[in-house]
Amino acid sequence: MSIPLLPSMLKHENISKITENGILIRDRRKLPFSNEDVLCHDYREAAKAIKEMVTQGGGPLEVALNSLLFTWLHDREHLSDAVSCLSLSRPTNTTMKRTLERVMEEYSKNNDMAGIIQSAFDYYDALYDKISDIGESLIEDGYGVLTTCFPEHTFMLTMAKAKANGKRITVYVPETRPYLQGAHLTEPCLRELGIECYLITDGMPAHFMMEGRIQLYMTASDLVLEDRTVVNKTGTLSNAIAAKYYGIPYYAFSLSPDRTKTRSDIVIEYRDGESIKRIGSLCIAPDEAAALYPCFDIIEPSLVAGIITEGGII
Amino acid sequence: MSIPLLPSMLKHENISKITENGILIRDRRKLPFSNEDVLCHDYREAAKAIKEMVTQGGGPLEVALNSLLFTWLHDREHLSDAVSCLSLSRPTNTTMKRTLERVMEEYSKNNDMAGIIQSAFDYYDALYDKISDIGESLIEDGYGVLTTCFPEHTFMLTMAKAKANGKRITVYVPETRPYLQGAHLTEPCLRELGIECYLITDGMPAHFMMEGRIQLYMTASDLVLEDRTVVNKTGTLSNAIAAKYYGIPYYAFSLSPDRTKTRSDIVIEYRDGESIKRIGSLCIAPDEAAALYPCFDIIEPSLVAGIITEGGII
Repeated sequence: MSIPLLPSMLKHENISKITENGILIRDRRKLPFSNEDVLCHDYREAAKAIKEMVTQGGGPLEVALNSLLFTWLHDREHLSDAVSCLSLSRPTNTTMKRTLERVMEEYSKNNDMAGIIQSAFDYYDALYDKISDIGESLIEDGYGVLTTCFPEHTFMLTMAKAKANGKRITVYVPETRPYLQGAHLTEPCLRELGIECYLITDGMPAHFMMEGRIQLYMTASDLVLEDRTVVNKTGTLSNAIAAKYYGIPYYAFSLSPDRTKTRSDIVIEYRDGESIKRIGSLCIAPDEAAALYPCFDIIEPSLVAGIITEGGII
Repeated sequence: MSIPLLPSMLKHENISKITENGILIRDRRKLPFSNEDVLCHDYREAAKAIKEMVTQGGGPLEVALNSLLFTWLHDREHLSDAVSCLSLSRPTNTTMKRTLERVMEEYSKNNDMAGIIQSAFDYYDALYDKISDIGESLIEDGYGVLTTCFPEHTFMLTMAKAKANGKRITVYVPETRPYLQGAHLTEPCLRELGIECYLITDGMPAHFMMEGRIQLYMTASDLVLEDRTVVNKTGTLSNAIAAKYYGIPYYAFSLSPDRTKTRSDIVIEYRDGESIKRIGSLCIAPDEAAALYPCFDIIEPSLVAGIITEGGII
């Protein structure tokens, strides 16, 4: 099942697929300027590609499921090695790890791996569909919506359904430095869906709030705690504070809030500051400059109007 | 008089100077990667260079004074044409226009143009010196300071004096898209002054506030109204709101608050959205993408702890 309203970048076959020779992964580092696939001959190469950021966000989950299927077809004795190798390729992606473990548990009772993996894909398609129905109920005709980074399936389906229901919406898309996911992924997806959208810089959201153009702030989430604390791409906090200041509700989508972690478990990873000094091949700062790159913001519950989950809005 | 604590980029001779052949303007579009001057053979070419953004911020004022001096030396009958031509080259820069008019008024009483222009340079040097003394009084040992864009003389002298007084400071410098003045101008100046500073993206200031690293937010201003409303580079509003949220005071430097204008006189100019889609020669978004580029933010008085002027803090 591929959900018809999705932009092409988010259709299964454009994220990852298997062929006779291996696992193909669409290289998101080159989107939207070129559609190139990276061919991985086995799960080890696929794990390496995930580590090297060939795909990100919801991509690694689909790559991991395809890699498990390919391993089952061609190299069955290494299935459990594949699970641990893939899980380690993106330690923060606990959804991927839990899904692979659930697949293996099923497989211990039922040896139709192809069917089990198809069910896993179907489960997420249905989940995206359910969550985006709830997201769509928050959109009113004429709304300006702000987002951050690349909020993928749940957000895109929310927007597509709002449009299908005749709601006119405008989306403001911060470019999301340093990796420019807003410019490279979010804006092209929204434009393909025929939704009015504008690329802006990361310093501009409050400007448009002040102008009265934004009625809703919606992002994906890397992690949501039971108390409604949201962990998401750096830049989200600044926008959530500005939204609160202007009385604009902030909602985060979550596939599964984590009920086991607390605020003190969250360690914000700092990546190499050199990423800030480069945009693609272009160097924007002198070699001697020091730069800081904290990957995620922690948004406290008082800034969050609600978490959009399959069970409703928390 | 050149103020000794200034970083080299802000010394008069590195902003603009005259030679026998014309007016030299340091090309800020190429800083800090190369030190290149644009040679203008007369005031018309200098006005054109200002329009083309060869220099910005406090640069056009110095170019205009030098152009007037060069015109007086070589083409004296065109002095008043030079004043109107230069004033029109950057209509928002009312300081430049008022200064040129004051010089001409002096000149109607005293024909030593070289002396009058030197006095105008000295006046601003003394003003920067006075204002930065007041700025420095707000800095405490161990402070983390956030800024936005390129806050030039008053801010740099404030930081240099705080350091000279033995105060340890760390400055967080947002890159300031789309033109990257933070990366290209602010960070190199602070580093030259020996001040610890970090380049960050425009979405990160709230992150560092939440981490408790920032105690003060200080910017220049394009315009300050009598009621303390500040107009400054887009991105300032977002940071001022976050600063308020975390109880961090926001101060703006002003050479001369405008007592004639009110909020309703402020029209925020939108520039070509194409600037958002390019970083130097690099294209970061598809041709079909729409982008918005509002140049300035309006920061309301409730977000401003004070305006730092020569007469003290308003």
